[in-house]
Amino acid sequence: MVTSMLNIIRRVCCRQAYHHQLSRLATASTQTRGLMAGPSMRPQEGQGVTPRRAVLYVPGSDERKLAKLSGLTVDCAVMDCEDGVAANRKDVARETIRKTLGSLHLPTVGDLAVRINAVDSGLAEDDLKEVLQAERLPDTLMIPKVESVSHLQWLADKLSAHFGPNPPSSPFKLVIFVESALGLLRLANICEEGQRLSRTTPFFTLEGVVFGSDDFCADIGATRTPEATELLYARQKVVTIAKAYRLQAIDLVHIDYKDLDSLEKQSLEGARMGFTGKQVIHPNQIPIVQKAFSPSPERMEWAKALIEAFEEHQHSGKGAFTFRDSMIDMPLVLQARNILKMADVTKDKPQ
Amino acid sequence: MVTSMLNIIRRVCCRQAYHHQLSRLATASTQTRGLMAGPSMRPQEGQGVTPRRAVLYVPGSDERKLAKLSGLTVDCAVMDCEDGVAANRKDVARETIRKTLGSLHLPTVGDLAVRINAVDSGLAEDDLKEVLQAERLPDTLMIPKVESVSHLQWLADKLSAHFGPNPPSSPFKLVIFVESALGLLRLANICEEGQRLSRTTPFFTLEGVVFGSDDFCADIGATRTPEATELLYARQKVVTIAKAYRLQAIDLVHIDYKDLDSLEKQSLEGARMGFTGKQVIHPNQIPIVQKAFSPSPERMEWAKALIEAFEEHQHSGKGAFTFRDSMIDMPLVLQARNILKMADVTKDKPQ
Amino acid sequence: MVTSMLNIIRRVCCRQAYHHQLSRLATASTQTRGLMAGPSMRPQEGQGVTPRRAVLYVPGSDERKLAKLSGLTVDCAVMDCEDGVAANRKDVARETIRKTLGSLHLPTVGDLAVRINAVDSGLAEDDLKEVLQAERLPDTLMIPKVESVSHLQWLADKLSAHFGPNPPSSPFKLVIFVESALGLLRLANICEEGQRLSRTTPFFTLEGVVFGSDDFCADIGATRTPEATELLYARQKVVTIAKAYRLQAIDLVHIDYKDLDSLEKQSLEGARMGFTGKQVIHPNQIPIVQKAFSPSPERMEWAKALIEAFEEHQHSGKGAFTFRDSMIDMPLVLQARNILKMADVTKDKPQ
Repeated sequence: MVTSMLNIIRRVCCRQAYHHQLSRLATASTQTRGLMAGPSMRPQEGQGVTPRRAVLYVPGSDERKLAKLSGLTVDCAVMDCEDGVAANRKDVARETIRKTLGSLHLPTVGDLAVRINAVDSGLAEDDLKEVLQAERLPDTLMIPKVESVSHLQWLADKLSAHFGPNPPSSPFKLVIFVESALGLLRLANICEEGQRLSRTTPFFTLEGVVFGSDDFCADIGATRTPEATELLYARQKVVTIAKAYRLQAIDLVHIDYKDLDSLEKQSLEGARMGFTGKQVIHPNQIPIVQKAFSPSPERMEWAKALIEAFEEHQHSGKGAFTFRDSMIDMPLVLQARNILKMADVTKDKPQ
Repeated sequence: MVTSMLNIIRRVCCRQAYHHQLSRLATASTQTRGLMAGPSMRPQEGQGVTPRRAVLYVPGSDERKLAKLSGLTVDCAVMDCEDGVAANRKDVARETIRKTLGSLHLPTVGDLAVRINAVDSGLAEDDLKEVLQAERLPDTLMIPKVESVSHLQWLADKLSAHFGPNPPSSPFKLVIFVESALGLLRLANICEEGQRLSRTTPFFTLEGVVFGSDDFCADIGATRTPEATELLYARQKVVTIAKAYRLQAIDLVHIDYKDLDSLEKQSLEGARMGFTGKQVIHPNQIPIVQKAFSPSPERMEWAKALIEAFEEHQHSGKGAFTFRDSMIDMPLVLQARNILKMADVTKDKPQ
Repeated sequence: MVTSMLNIIRRVCCRQAYHHQLSRLATASTQTRGLMAGPSMRPQEGQGVTPRRAVLYVPGSDERKLAKLSGLTVDCAVMDCEDGVAANRKDVARETIRKTLGSLHLPTVGDLAVRINAVDSGLAEDDLKEVLQAERLPDTLMIPKVESVSHLQWLADKLSAHFGPNPPSSPFKLVIFVESALGLLRLANICEEGQRLSRTTPFFTLEGVVFGSDDFCADIGATRTPEATELLYARQKVVTIAKAYRLQAIDLVHIDYKDLDSLEKQSLEGARMGFTGKQVIHPNQIPIVQKAFSPSPERMEWAKALIEAFEEHQHSGKGAFTFRDSMIDMPLVLQARNILKMADVTKDKPQ
C-alpha cells in the first residue's frame, strides 16, 4: 500500500510536498534541504524511527525498580542518573545501571535509554564512562539541561575519546532536554548544532527534544496549574522548533500519578499540539499515554475516507473538494497521511 | 480632519509617537528607522495600502468559479495555481488564469492576486511565466510555503529576467505564506529580506504575511480543534513579526464553510489578536469576515469620544486622565486612532 | 538557616543546580556562565535585589500627586516624564521631579524611580539632564519603548558625559520597557547588551523588563480583552527572556482601576506565569498587587513541608520520592526554595 500511495503522491503533489512525504517515509534520509542554515531532512514519526510515546524514568539507584522493567511494555524506558537519584547515591546509580544493562533482558521495552547528569554538573563524565563499560550499550543517550551548543560538542568529544578510531557500528540515538529559559532561547541553535554533529560524527543521531517543565517552571519562577496555561508559550515553541528540525517532541510529566483522568486529558492535549510523546513516572501511566499518542479509531477512519475521496477527485482532475462539510486540499491530505503513518509505525507496539 | 488631527498629534506627542503616526498615514514612506538591522518604515492599514480583510481563493482550473468573481464584492480575490488545483490540472490552471486576467472585468474586487506554486515545487517558474504573459497583470503576487530568504531572491531574479531594463511602472504587491515550522522559525529573516528587496528592486513591495494553518498543522503533527489553542503560539508570533515589519497579517481559514456562527467568532478573535484579515474559501464567508475586520460602531464611538476627551485634556495641560473608569494615556489614544483610520480606509468598501 | 540550607544543597545537588542556587542567593555575583554569548549570572529575587511587586506611576507634572507619595507604602514609585504627562507640560514635569527628588522624604517607598521619555522622542536628553541635577538622585532609571541596543548605548554615553571621570558611587538600577512588536522581536539582544554594559560601565545595572501592554496592543493593532488571551505570546515571551537574563519581569497594567476583583485575578495569573511584579496606576491597587506577588501562606506551608521531606529522603539516600500524591525531584525542590526566598525578601515590606 505504501508503494501505491507513493505513486499517487508522486503524481498529484507538487515537488516540495512530495519530497516532504518522501523524507517522512524514508528510513534514513540524510540529504539537506539546500537552504541556507537549513536543518537536514530527517525521518519523523516514520519507519526507522523509534516511537517514544511514553518515556518512563526509573531511578538508576533502585535495583528493584530496574528489575521490574522486564515485566513492562513501554516504548521507551530511561535508567536515570539525574534528578531521580539522590546526590549521595550517584555512584551507586551509575554502577547499577552498568550492571543492569548487561544482565537485564527487556524484550517489551522498545527503546532503552540512559539519562546521564547535566554536562555542567561535574557528574556527567563519570556517568558516561561507567555506562560505556556496560556489556550491552543503551540504544539512546539522554542529556538533561542542555543550555548551550557546547554541551553537544562535549558529548561528541567524550565519545570520540572513548571509541578512538573504532566508532560504534550504529550511532547512539540522542535525546536532549530543554529545562530553562536560556535553553529555550537557544533551542533552535542547539538543534542546528545537534544535527550538524549527527551528520559529521559517527557517534550519535539527534532524535528528540524533551520539555522539562518542572525545572523550567523553577527557572522562570512560574507556578504550575492543572491547565498549564502558564506553559503554553514554552510548550508550543518546543514543538515548533523540534518539528522544524524533524525531531520528536516529548511533553511534560504529569506528576500527580494517581489522577489518571487528568493524565489522559493532558496527554490528548499534548498530542493535539503536535507532541509525539510524554514523560511518565509510574507504570500505570504508560497505557493511557501510549493510547493518547496513537491515532484514535475515529481519526483513522476519517483519514482513510478522506484519502479515498482525495484520490477519486484527483483522478477526475478536481483540486479542492468538499468532504463532510469541509473544503479539503493538500494540507488536510497531509494530515490524514500523518495519521495513517503513525498508526502503521505503532501498530505492533503495545498500548 | 486628518490635517487637524495631525497638527494636534504633532503638538502633543513625543517625536517617536509622532513619526509612528506619520509613517502609518503616509502613502509611500520608505525611510528606514536608522536602527541596526531594522525594518524600514512602511505604511500599515493606512491610505495607499490595499485592505485585505477577506482573501478569497478560487481554483485557477475552474473557469466557472473564476467567471463568478465578476459578481462578487471582496477586498481580495486570489486566482490559485497551488493547493486548490489538482496536480494533473496545473497546466490548465495557469492558462485559464492568464486568459481570465485579460478578459474579466472585476470592478468590485479590490485587489486581484495570483497565487503561484511554491518556489521549491518545480512548478513556480511555469506559473509565473504564464501569468506574466497576461494582457492585464494581477495587482498582487502570492508565494506559498516560503521557508527561506532565497525564495524571495528567486522571485526578484525571475522578474528581473522577464522585465529586463523595463520594470513594471508600479511594483507588484507581494504577499507571502508561512506554512511550516521552519518557515515560522525564519519568518523575521524572511520579512527582513522581503523589505530589503522591496527597497532595492523595482519589482515588488512586500505587503503581507498569510498564516497557512492547515499546512502548518500537518507539518508539526498538530490536530486542529475549534478553539485553535494548539495554534496560539504560531498565530501570535505571525502577528508580532508581521507588525514589526509593518505588514498585513492574514489569519487562518475556517474550513467548515457552512458554520457561519463559528466563522464569525473566529474572525473576531483574529481581529482582536491584531490580524488585519482572514482567508476565505466560499463567497458566503466574505461579508462576515469583512465586517469582523472592520471597526464596530461601538468601537468607533469609543474611539471618537476618547480622542475628543484626549484633546480637551491636552489643551488644558493634563496628561493621563480618566475616561469611562479607565486611565488613559498615549497608548490608548494610538489604539483609538488606529480604529478611526481603519474605518476611514474601508468606508467605501463593501462589507 | 540560609547557611544550613546551603550546606544541604551543596551536598545534595549536582554542581549546576548548586551554582544556580548560589547565584540566586548571592548579593552581587557577576561571574559569567562561560557559555558562548551567554548572559552573565545575576541575582534574581534574592537578597540585594530591590523587590518591585507593585510599580506605581505618578505624573511628574502633578505636584499634588507627587507629594502624596510620602504617605504611600509601595515597593517602587515612578516619577513619570513620559506617557502620563501632556506634551505641553514636559518642561514642568522634569523640573518638578528634580525639585521633588531633593525635598521629599519617602521612607515607605522601597525603590524611587524616574521614567524619562523614549530615546527616540527627542525629549530624553533634557529629561536626563534635569534629573541628574537633583540633590538626591533616584535609585532607578526607567527607559520606555526600547527598540534597539543603541538606546542602551545612548544612556551609557549620556551618563558617561555627565559624570566624566567620577562615576556615581553605586550604579543606577535600570529598568527597560518593551512596548512594540519590534522591541519584543529584539528583546533578547537588548537584554544581552544591557548586561554587557552593566558589566563594562559603572553607570547602571539592568534589573528588570516591563511589558507595556497598551502601547504593544496599539503597535500590533490588537484589542485588549479582560482575559488578555491576545497577549499570551507576548507576556510569556517577555517572562522567558527576562528570566533567561536573570531580570525581573513586570506585568501589564490593569487600567480599570475601580475593578479590584479583576485586578487581583490578573495579578495572580501574572505571578503564576513567572512575572515578579505589576504596574499600577492608582494607590488602591498597591496592596492587592503586592499580596498577589508574595507567596501565599498555603504555598509557604507546602514549600516548607516539601523541603523537610526532601531533606529526610536525601539523608536516607532516596532520590525521587512521593509527597502528597506527587512525585518529587529536584525541580520541585527548587520551586519550593524560590517561594521561601521570595517570602524572605519581602517579609519586612508592607503588603
